[in-house]
Amino acid sequence: MTVDYSSKEYLNKLDAYWRAANYISVGQLYLKDNPLLRRPLKASDVKVKPIGHWGTIAGQNFIYAHLNRVINKYDLNMFYVEGPGHGGQVMVSNSYLDGSYTEIYPDITEDEAGMKKLFKRFSFPGGVASHAAPETPGSIHEGGELGYSISHATGAILDNPDLIVAAVVGDGEAETGPLATSWQSNKFINPINDGAVLPILDLNGFKISNPTILSRESNENLQKYFEGMGWHPIFVEGDDPEKLHPLMAQALDQAIEEIKAIQANARQNNDASLPVWPMIIFRAPKGWTGPKTWDNVPIEKSFRAHQIPIPVDQNDMQHADALVAWLESYRPEELFDENGTLKAEIKAITPKGDKRMAANPHTNPGKLIRDLVKPDFRNYAVDTTVKGQTVAQDMTVLGTYLEDVVKENAANKNFRIFGPDETMSNRLAPLFKETNRQWLSPIKEPNDEFLAPAGRIIDSQLSEHQDEGFLEGYVLTGRHGFFASYEAFLRVVDSMLTQHFKWLRKAKEQPWRTSVPSLNVVATSTVFQQDHNGYTHQDPGILGHLADKKPEFIREYLPADANSLLAVFDKVLNDRDKINLIVSSKHPRQQFYSAAEAKELVDNGLKIIDWASTDKNAKPDVVIAAAGTEPNLEALAAISILHEKLPDLKIRFINVVDLLKLRSPKVDPRGLSDAEFDAYFTKDVPVIFAFHGYEGLIRDIFFDRHNHNLSIHGYRENGDITTPFDMRVLNQMDRFDLVKAAVLSLPDADKYGQIVAEMDAKVAKHHQYIRDEGTDLPEVEAWEWKSLE
Amino acid sequence: MTVDYSSKEYLNKLDAYWRAANYISVGQLYLKDNPLLRRPLKASDVKVKPIGHWGTIAGQNFIYAHLNRVINKYDLNMFYVEGPGHGGQVMVSNSYLDGSYTEIYPDITEDEAGMKKLFKRFSFPGGVASHAAPETPGSIHEGGELGYSISHATGAILDNPDLIVAAVVGDGEAETGPLATSWQSNKFINPINDGAVLPILDLNGFKISNPTILSRESNENLQKYFEGMGWHPIFVEGDDPEKLHPLMAQALDQAIEEIKAIQANARQNNDASLPVWPMIIFRAPKGWTGPKTWDNVPIEKSFRAHQIPIPVDQNDMQHADALVAWLESYRPEELFDENGTLKAEIKAITPKGDKRMAANPHTNPGKLIRDLVKPDFRNYAVDTTVKGQTVAQDMTVLGTYLEDVVKENAANKNFRIFGPDETMSNRLAPLFKETNRQWLSPIKEPNDEFLAPAGRIIDSQLSEHQDEGFLEGYVLTGRHGFFASYEAFLRVVDSMLTQHFKWLRKAKEQPWRTSVPSLNVVATSTVFQQDHNGYTHQDPGILGHLADKKPEFIREYLPADANSLLAVFDKVLNDRDKINLIVSSKHPRQQFYSAAEAKELVDNGLKIIDWASTDKNAKPDVVIAAAGTEPNLEALAAISILHEKLPDLKIRFINVVDLLKLRSPKVDPRGLSDAEFDAYFTKDVPVIFAFHGYEGLIRDIFFDRHNHNLSIHGYRENGDITTPFDMRVLNQMDRFDLVKAAVLSLPDADKYGQIVAEMDAKVAKHHQYIRDEGTDLPEVEAWEWKSLE
Repeated sequence: MTVDYSSKEYLNKLDAYWRAANYISVGQLYLKDNPLLRRPLKASDVKVKPIGHWGTIAGQNFIYAHLNRVINKYDLNMFYVEGPGHGGQVMVSNSYLDGSYTEIYPDITEDEAGMKKLFKRFSFPGGVASHAAPETPGSIHEGGELGYSISHATGAILDNPDLIVAAVVGDGEAETGPLATSWQSNKFINPINDGAVLPILDLNGFKISNPTILSRESNENLQKYFEGMGWHPIFVEGDDPEKLHPLMAQALDQAIEEIKAIQANARQNNDASLPVWPMIIFRAPKGWTGPKTWDNVPIEKSFRAHQIPIPVDQNDMQHADALVAWLESYRPEELFDENGTLKAEIKAITPKGDKRMAANPHTNPGKLIRDLVKPDFRNYAVDTTVKGQTVAQDMTVLGTYLEDVVKENAANKNFRIFGPDETMSNRLAPLFKETNRQWLSPIKEPNDEFLAPAGRIIDSQLSEHQDEGFLEGYVLTGRHGFFASYEAFLRVVDSMLTQHFKWLRKAKEQPWRTSVPSLNVVATSTVFQQDHNGYTHQDPGILGHLADKKPEFIREYLPADANSLLAVFDKVLNDRDKINLIVSSKHPRQQFYSAAEAKELVDNGLKIIDWASTDKNAKPDVVIAAAGTEPNLEALAAISILHEKLPDLKIRFINVVDLLKLRSPKVDPRGLSDAEFDAYFTKDVPVIFAFHGYEGLIRDIFFDRHNHNLSIHGYRENGDITTPFDMRVLNQMDRFDLVKAAVLSLPDADKYGQIVAEMDAKVAKHHQYIRDEGTDLPEVEAWEWKSLE
Repeated sequence: MTVDYSSKEYLNKLDAYWRAANYISVGQLYLKDNPLLRRPLKASDVKVKPIGHWGTIAGQNFIYAHLNRVINKYDLNMFYVEGPGHGGQVMVSNSYLDGSYTEIYPDITEDEAGMKKLFKRFSFPGGVASHAAPETPGSIHEGGELGYSISHATGAILDNPDLIVAAVVGDGEAETGPLATSWQSNKFINPINDGAVLPILDLNGFKISNPTILSRESNENLQKYFEGMGWHPIFVEGDDPEKLHPLMAQALDQAIEEIKAIQANARQNNDASLPVWPMIIFRAPKGWTGPKTWDNVPIEKSFRAHQIPIPVDQNDMQHADALVAWLESYRPEELFDENGTLKAEIKAITPKGDKRMAANPHTNPGKLIRDLVKPDFRNYAVDTTVKGQTVAQDMTVLGTYLEDVVKENAANKNFRIFGPDETMSNRLAPLFKETNRQWLSPIKEPNDEFLAPAGRIIDSQLSEHQDEGFLEGYVLTGRHGFFASYEAFLRVVDSMLTQHFKWLRKAKEQPWRTSVPSLNVVATSTVFQQDHNGYTHQDPGILGHLADKKPEFIREYLPADANSLLAVFDKVLNDRDKINLIVSSKHPRQQFYSAAEAKELVDNGLKIIDWASTDKNAKPDVVIAAAGTEPNLEALAAISILHEKLPDLKIRFINVVDLLKLRSPKVDPRGLSDAEFDAYFTKDVPVIFAFHGYEGLIRDIFFDRHNHNLSIHGYRENGDITTPFDMRVLNQMDRFDLVKAAVLSLPDADKYGQIVAEMDAKVAKHHQYIRDEGTDLPEVEAWEWKSLE
């Protein structure tokens, strides 16, 4: 049977469907009983505190209904990203109408009883969030913090050539920095191998209490703006549904046909030149179909439509008639049958099965996830037979491993690397032997390098927001990857990481949600290795930031050398449902740990390093611990000095890789028990802790432990444009200061004045040398590890 | 004497000046001696490790030289914001050439000896940063973290009608989110009262190792992009200096004349309609005037020009001839006299005195700062005679005070409020009685509200990045203000706050830099008062984030009620050189502290609240402490219950407003001494600490104190869409859990099983009630404070 998707009849059904979605969306705001108004509205039918948002609803329901239409017409594989923040009813209502909501939440039946429960739980304590959230079927995008709809959508369609993500962008959201730059995502979408993002700018005109900037631009300026960024904007504008249905149908047909034409051309002719993708600019009123005015001021077409437009609640029923009139304006009697079920002829036009956007498999990707093929990381290990003899760049060694990860997973197309123009700077150069940077804009070799229309690396936009957003979209649709950034500038996306963690946590509470690959974040170009970039580039605080979150979802790895870094990657690559932060060195550093030691360090989180310890399993005189590359190096150098000065001193050296294992089980269920902790750190022996980050985090960690005999040497916010070793001296995390701290921690500290004086002299010599020469003391650079024996 | 600024002769001088700037910029990269090559170059003349960046230098020096020209021609009040990150030599070199550098750093004389020192200290340990920084004359903008050049420039020109800030935007920087949205800043610039930003997009084509997105766009697309955002782009393009000088002169003349015409029209005709401001798009090669190729690959016009283009250093002089040839290509013998001083005829074309961009008074605004007139905050205080009887919204009360701050400082035009569409939501409504939101786009009342072309509030763009950037620009040029945001979304600008702190810190080390007004940040709509916004809006981690920084520059205030908030504002409004974080409630809350108490709380940081304590200055049985509005409320409610249940229990209640005063002097010089701390918290009495933020920060704070008998009740990352009281229950920060913690902390805890059971029953009742009704227990809402007596 041929359906005429543009017929008046079809569009009338679509209009009825839209009214049903609007009806349900308003009901969720106000009602907790009598959902179909089949008896007069009483106070007890109304929520005590109606809470939620109205302004964006009807416009988005309109878009959703019309997307359903093109899904049917063109048999599309499509899902919906809801950029406008507060309009949580949209995806819920539409999912309820197409039956997918009830499949996931069987309690919410497709009848009056189910509708009543649906209404009550919206924006209700412990219920459904007032924006798209993990509990929303079909969502991979949370509507709480705004700005990431297009980057999430883009991440999702990479390597999914048949997928189209309809990314609805709020005009408020469009004012954020991350969204404003995310229009440039088109430069990274390959029309042959990737799917398509269809942005729909929802220009309803207002935010919380202001107009929006873009809505006050002329269409001429909007057209220029988007054409200037390489999009083809298609305008749909009006407030009369009868006129707007055929216009929207036509516009979406055009957009889908343009996408299909671009893809067909690219795929048939192997033409990966940058296409001009279509987008929709949809101008319809904020608060559309709702109350026009209230108290003599406009509601519709005003910011006042943002939240609850009519003051009706259980304790204030004065204007209940206005609410009823509003609800009845959707003519529910035409929409729902006597059971309260959407009438069959209306339901007939919803997509079916996996074609329903709320049931799109990519949005809950368990079935689609393919584990990465992992080469044996030991094959890439550097030789550490003589401790410290090999000098290597940890990130480059990792690059050789990743080169093969890319190669071995090439056929599956499920691994990608993201970065803000730093892949090379972060020393992952070996990757370029196997793959390129994906970049659809013109390429001008030999001035350019390693660019191609297809490649596993996307790093040609200087935006951490874009990287994090792409990676989120990629992993939430079941693929794997990581984002490597300068450590200090990961803080640019602090809040995105918070929101992703929040997503993971709430998703875990949804039994129907499958696990997703972890979000792996590499912090490199770190605080203790800066030189020419200086003070602005020095901030290890991402460790404390993520440590605040629920421990189940966060790991913080501080591999001290290349083999440790390899072992960390071996662990995280097929990991699930976490944010893994990996703090890694990129500069040439001495190498210490064998692959076997590295694996043990990663598996156990920490390890007493026997070859650097002299306590022979007895109670030590001092415990020296290190977490991080430079802390490990300085700690070992300090131990060498102590061996030389005090050969009888019983030192225990502990290297820590999985930092949060140190926390008390009171704080972190994975934490070492007190007995285990004491077995490492003792209850009272002085601990000298060389640490990569801010010291507060270590104080926090040790607070609940017996041993408070602690001298922490972390980043004390003493930064500058200087050498890597001077950075350590400035923060007293250098070998000389560690030696001082160690001897001064001993019960007979006053005997060691000579050693203290010697260390002070070394520091003074360093200061003079660096002032004169601008480089580190040759003796520091030439240091070699020697075990005591 | 009339000067023909477009004559060949003038432009030749300008070219000579440009060559001098380029010469000095290259010298800074490589040389530490023999700066004018007046003898053959030896190894010891060259730095051991040349470090820095070349790619952006010649283009920016060209822009700088031409800006000098229009300053002369039009007698402009102008300064330079250097957006492109690494090109630290630019502002240094130009400042050196116009003499302002030597005025600030008298050691760096305008001769060969001074030049030698200038060269050596660039990008040298402890020396001059490789990007614009606090030590750079004329800078209010740090080039480390990219994206804020236009928002800083916009903040600077607000209320400075005669000022033009030339904001050079790097094409890498242009790819960041914050920069991409900052083009919309034109919507907030009033042509009558404010100055002008002249953006200059420095389209040199490349970043660290990639091309830039905008540079690969056609001029047609660029024109559309910028016209679409309301700018008039003027293109200047080429690589032949001889051709480019007249083109650039003409383009800048045009831009300045357009600015002047806009301002003249606006000011003469009182026409504040949104103008189309000019901007420059400058396409010149990356690495311009440097080595064309190296090892058979392009350097100029390639990403390879980014850093050090020719490998020459003290230990590798093989290619020293190429370096010498490069330096000599600028013909230094034509530029510097026998002393090594810039020749007088070239220096003649630099602006003089305050007209020099590096000496512009706005960039070091000590002389320009006018203290705010502050009304007596006590006049706005709420009545707290009966503790807890008054219910008020702290932010609204603050609004009444701020209304008068705006009024009393109207003439001085030196106070502004910034926000991301939240001024109303954050309950600062009283402000709108006195002023409007500044907004130059069309206004459509009655659909809009409180918009006008001029107003003290800028909150009509949904972008925390813009707010923070505007405020930074505003305070760094000597004016006052604050930025109010939802607490969770302050994290969007974590890194901007870090960078501003770093600026303050390094600026403080420059004896020539004056103090600047503090950056005041209000976190409201906080974690324990969320309801309909839900889990995404719950994150108090900004407290921990800022606490990591150097204590001298950070304050964290947690006023528990309106009078405390007023007292905090009284303290911060004329404060200098800090970031003041103020965490404030916006919802109706009971009011407790008198204005006098509030002042004491703010002055001392904390206070034993006698009317809520029963220890009568003796050793208490339990100390209950609170920091934050809801912690204070719950602690008082818990104390009421304890009074009732255990009237003999000696309770000490401490309210903490200035949180970081609790830190040990080992960590924070302002911290209470151990003796002072013990006088408040004792050495061993159980402390129940109700806290607004993550608990790790309190563990960190208490680590160095005697008393570790501590039960912290903070935000445990248990969030949801729920009621404010349920948020406290979820995190065990509610009165019932506090009572339990208190009795269980007592030595005879096992006697209080009954109380524990009662509290558990209350919590269970709460859970049931909220599930049924969706609101808080009436008994919780009806709670009233009663002192024991």
